[in-house]
Amino acid sequence: MGETSGQMWVATVAWRGDAYAGWQIQPNERTIQGELGAALASLCGQDEPVHVRASGRTDAGVHAEMQVIGFRLPVERAPHQVVFGINRHTPDDISCLSAKPAADNFSPRSWTKKKLYRYRIVNRPSGCPFREAVAWHVKRKLNLEEIQAAIPHLLGQHDYSSFRAAGCSAVETIRTVPEGRAYRADDGEIRIEFEGHGFLRHQVRIMVGTLVEVGHGAIAAERMATIRGLKKRAAAGPTAPAKGLTLVHVELLDGPRDDEPA
Amino acid sequence: MGETSGQMWVATVAWRGDAYAGWQIQPNERTIQGELGAALASLCGQDEPVHVRASGRTDAGVHAEMQVIGFRLPVERAPHQVVFGINRHTPDDISCLSAKPAADNFSPRSWTKKKLYRYRIVNRPSGCPFREAVAWHVKRKLNLEEIQAAIPHLLGQHDYSSFRAAGCSAVETIRTVPEGRAYRADDGEIRIEFEGHGFLRHQVRIMVGTLVEVGHGAIAAERMATIRGLKKRAAAGPTAPAKGLTLVHVELLDGPRDDEPA
Repeated sequence: MGETSGQMWVATVAWRGDAYAGWQIQPNERTIQGELGAALASLCGQDEPVHVRASGRTDAGVHAEMQVIGFRLPVERAPHQVVFGINRHTPDDISCLSAKPAADNFSPRSWTKKKLYRYRIVNRPSGCPFREAVAWHVKRKLNLEEIQAAIPHLLGQHDYSSFRAAGCSAVETIRTVPEGRAYRADDGEIRIEFEGHGFLRHQVRIMVGTLVEVGHGAIAAERMATIRGLKKRAAAGPTAPAKGLTLVHVELLDGPRDDEPA
Repeated sequence: MGETSGQMWVATVAWRGDAYAGWQIQPNERTIQGELGAALASLCGQDEPVHVRASGRTDAGVHAEMQVIGFRLPVERAPHQVVFGINRHTPDDISCLSAKPAADNFSPRSWTKKKLYRYRIVNRPSGCPFREAVAWHVKRKLNLEEIQAAIPHLLGQHDYSSFRAAGCSAVETIRTVPEGRAYRADDGEIRIEFEGHGFLRHQVRIMVGTLVEVGHGAIAAERMATIRGLKKRAAAGPTAPAKGLTLVHVELLDGPRDDEPA
């Protein structure tokens, strides 16, 4: 796979996830990793795809305004050639924003300090044609103050088993979520954001789905701590649709984490 | 067509134009007028489409964040029923935002005070997956100050023949464009806006296409007055792509204009 020789690169990419089966390469599916690996192969003039790593996987349908990726190139290229090369060989819904040579031991996952995820909700009777693909349309009015009151119960270092997908295979279910917030943006949409190094599978979407139940008055805000403490998926609300979730930003360290995260 | 009886309504609608052959109904084409007329027919339980008028036509591919429409309904409905009914029977890329009963002589075109058009340009080497359908991607850096210097030459009451499509059939080519501006939005995109009661066919897009030539240094800003004065389409720059243009807002009068505009 040409993974051990050649210059290591770090790059940032954005994509709209609607047309993809998520980050990870899979047979007979369009994936972000697959498209990027094929584009880099074209850039290098080779048939074999280039292996591309990311700061973490994202689900089918989830978007990224900025994901950090890493890969080795067996050929010499200038940074603008890498950016232009990726963009020339990927569809319009994937875009490389920047690229530069990286340290030989660079690894997007272990160099990640934290990731910011944003969930967008259009909360009004009529949908928005311009946000149909990137936000969840919730027609019934949400009580933003109640959602805000519930969020502190979802922050800190906890066992987040109540908020992970049934199929999640993580052995360690303790995660640290240092920050989170809900607010109304200028265009009226409700945004729910969580920051952390890593999340369990569907964790952000299940937390959002549960917060929407709080916003509808079906679950009391202060019950969120109990739901978390039960450590059972059944205790939480439904999983919010993937299309409303965007990976907004990845902050990198200067080197690998001392503690490889759970 | 049921146009002379029934309650007159005024409504606001938004749409993403990519999938439509413009506003005006045409055989064998998907159009905004066609979709809305069919949706209102379903709302009324009739086969015949309801005739829907707008403040003006928009080209194929042009978007609307807010267009004003008018129509008569032969059945009694509450405002929320009209909004929900339109939304139930239109695709997700068309949305009715509001509706209310109107004066019997209401006509969106002749009651329009002014319309605001916005043209969005993503001006950076890499495209933006989230704005691909709603903005023009111009890779080469534009000089915003030069564009701003050229805009005053495009404002006022003038013969805008240099900025109308070859196929434009308007007899009167004098239009009044009271306001216009270019600025950089928070997300870095360049926006060019024009306000006026009405525009010639492709006028905003040809003005923008010419301003982009100014931004590239191919046309001097002060030459814009000469180009306008030549009254020849060939004097101006290319027509900017439809997808970057959005009708943002329509301001209504309390009644019909005294002077039916040129």
